[in-house]
Amino acid sequence: MTIYDAPSGQPAAIPTPAPGDPRLAALSLNQWTTRYWTVAQAIEGCVRAGIPAIGIWREPLHEHGVDATAQRVRDAGLRVSSLCRGGFFTAPDRARRQEAIADNRRAIDEAASLGARCLTLVVGGLPSGSRDLEGARRSVADAVAELVPHAAAAGVRLALEPLHPMYCADRAVLSTLAQALDLAELFPAAQVGVVVDTFHVWWDPDLPRQIGRAGRRIASFQVCDWLVPVPSDLLLARGMMGDGVIDFRPLRLAVAAAGYEGDIEVEIFNADLWAAPGDDIVGTTVRRYVQYVL
Amino acid sequence: MTIYDAPSGQPAAIPTPAPGDPRLAALSLNQWTTRYWTVAQAIEGCVRAGIPAIGIWREPLHEHGVDATAQRVRDAGLRVSSLCRGGFFTAPDRARRQEAIADNRRAIDEAASLGARCLTLVVGGLPSGSRDLEGARRSVADAVAELVPHAAAAGVRLALEPLHPMYCADRAVLSTLAQALDLAELFPAAQVGVVVDTFHVWWDPDLPRQIGRAGRRIASFQVCDWLVPVPSDLLLARGMMGDGVIDFRPLRLAVAAAGYEGDIEVEIFNADLWAAPGDDIVGTTVRRYVQYVL
Repeated sequence: MTIYDAPSGQPAAIPTPAPGDPRLAALSLNQWTTRYWTVAQAIEGCVRAGIPAIGIWREPLHEHGVDATAQRVRDAGLRVSSLCRGGFFTAPDRARRQEAIADNRRAIDEAASLGARCLTLVVGGLPSGSRDLEGARRSVADAVAELVPHAAAAGVRLALEPLHPMYCADRAVLSTLAQALDLAELFPAAQVGVVVDTFHVWWDPDLPRQIGRAGRRIASFQVCDWLVPVPSDLLLARGMMGDGVIDFRPLRLAVAAAGYEGDIEVEIFNADLWAAPGDDIVGTTVRRYVQYVL
Repeated sequence: MTIYDAPSGQPAAIPTPAPGDPRLAALSLNQWTTRYWTVAQAIEGCVRAGIPAIGIWREPLHEHGVDATAQRVRDAGLRVSSLCRGGFFTAPDRARRQEAIADNRRAIDEAASLGARCLTLVVGGLPSGSRDLEGARRSVADAVAELVPHAAAAGVRLALEPLHPMYCADRAVLSTLAQALDLAELFPAAQVGVVVDTFHVWWDPDLPRQIGRAGRRIASFQVCDWLVPVPSDLLLARGMMGDGVIDFRPLRLAVAAAGYEGDIEVEIFNADLWAAPGDDIVGTTVRRYVQYVL
């Protein structure tokens, strides 16, 4: 499996950096990269590998309990780089929209309990049966406006995530960094930021300019590679850094030059990767991060 | 199969417009929509259905012969809305780049022989093994500049086609209409235009503005629907109008308001559709065009 070795034609793997290596100071493991680990296992895995931050998902958080997870993260000395995720605002009717808003209020409270740097929002696609893209985009803006006061009161920063345009119909009608910024800029930067995820935005000819524009609006920087050919299940199509075509270093430098000082979160949905033992996934993550991102 | 009937939850199918129906005056059948027809069959199929224009592909053109095809199209009284396609400029080395340029010169000559309204250019993805997206984009611009004099001499208009960003790595590093216009505007409008294909650009939040900016640079308008979920083979993931989520009418009106007066070409790559008899594909195309695009 290519996750253990250098992909063909690429440089040889580097030795795994030891815990405490200063090169790992900004690295975060998004929990979904080790999909089959419990939250407790993921926390322990980060500690063993010397990864100082973690991105937590809500489903395992609910299983393990918010307070218990918060305590465990604190005890382990980890930062929570993000809580994933709120959003899915584009409901087909008023009742389900209100449910979505209520659920996002709970997500904000959970992010506050965890001390998460941001709550990632995947805003939702077209409502089933709808072709009204502009309407869906308006309803996202309305939902964010509705949530901002609650987020402000809780001290939580919302992070709007533009998803790759191939997910526009079914996951997120927010499709470019420019569009995410147009929405975020309606609110104070402390309340609403944006996510820059290399997988979603690497192709954008306007990216350098928009990263510069984003500046300290960047609430989260995620890395993940684009594979060729694209795997057939688009939701699990993401690759380990080095396995695909993204040139990470210039993107990391651009985000840093824009003023981003937060963690660099590795978030990879890939069934082949997930099938590996968690510590192997983490080891590969650490090596590839140093080799391809730093 | 949904290609024969209205998709579930959608309006009932309309009666098939008869040949001569003025609603078909701007319709063009891209030959690849009836993938298994020969060029002669496609021409006859258009005549039977009352479709006044056709988009021709180079592979069948070479099989049938350029002059013979040109003669047959003229005899049938059809317009050639496009020749598909030149491009693939992003070669990994100098020799293959020169081959690509030479092949594009031949494509320009073929477009001239056919009297095609434009030569569609799919510019190519990243060269194999490369992560240099900016470099690939520069090499596309260089190739277009190199071809423009030949196109001008032949009286052929080059049409830069931005492809959906999900094809950026392996088919076309031209990913948005804005980016295509940035390149096209370096040259006279009569020599270099752009393609607006609904499948590739429907998601773009900047689309209305860019269509307005494009104006008479629009050399070709293609329609094709976006299916949900996205079929697993991305190269055959396109849907018949009405089977997906694109709202065609506002896009058609925007393109017309920008000054486009050419044909509306139906170009669909879909294995289920291709499996149907050609006349059934054409009948569905005509009905869905009137119902969803006009």
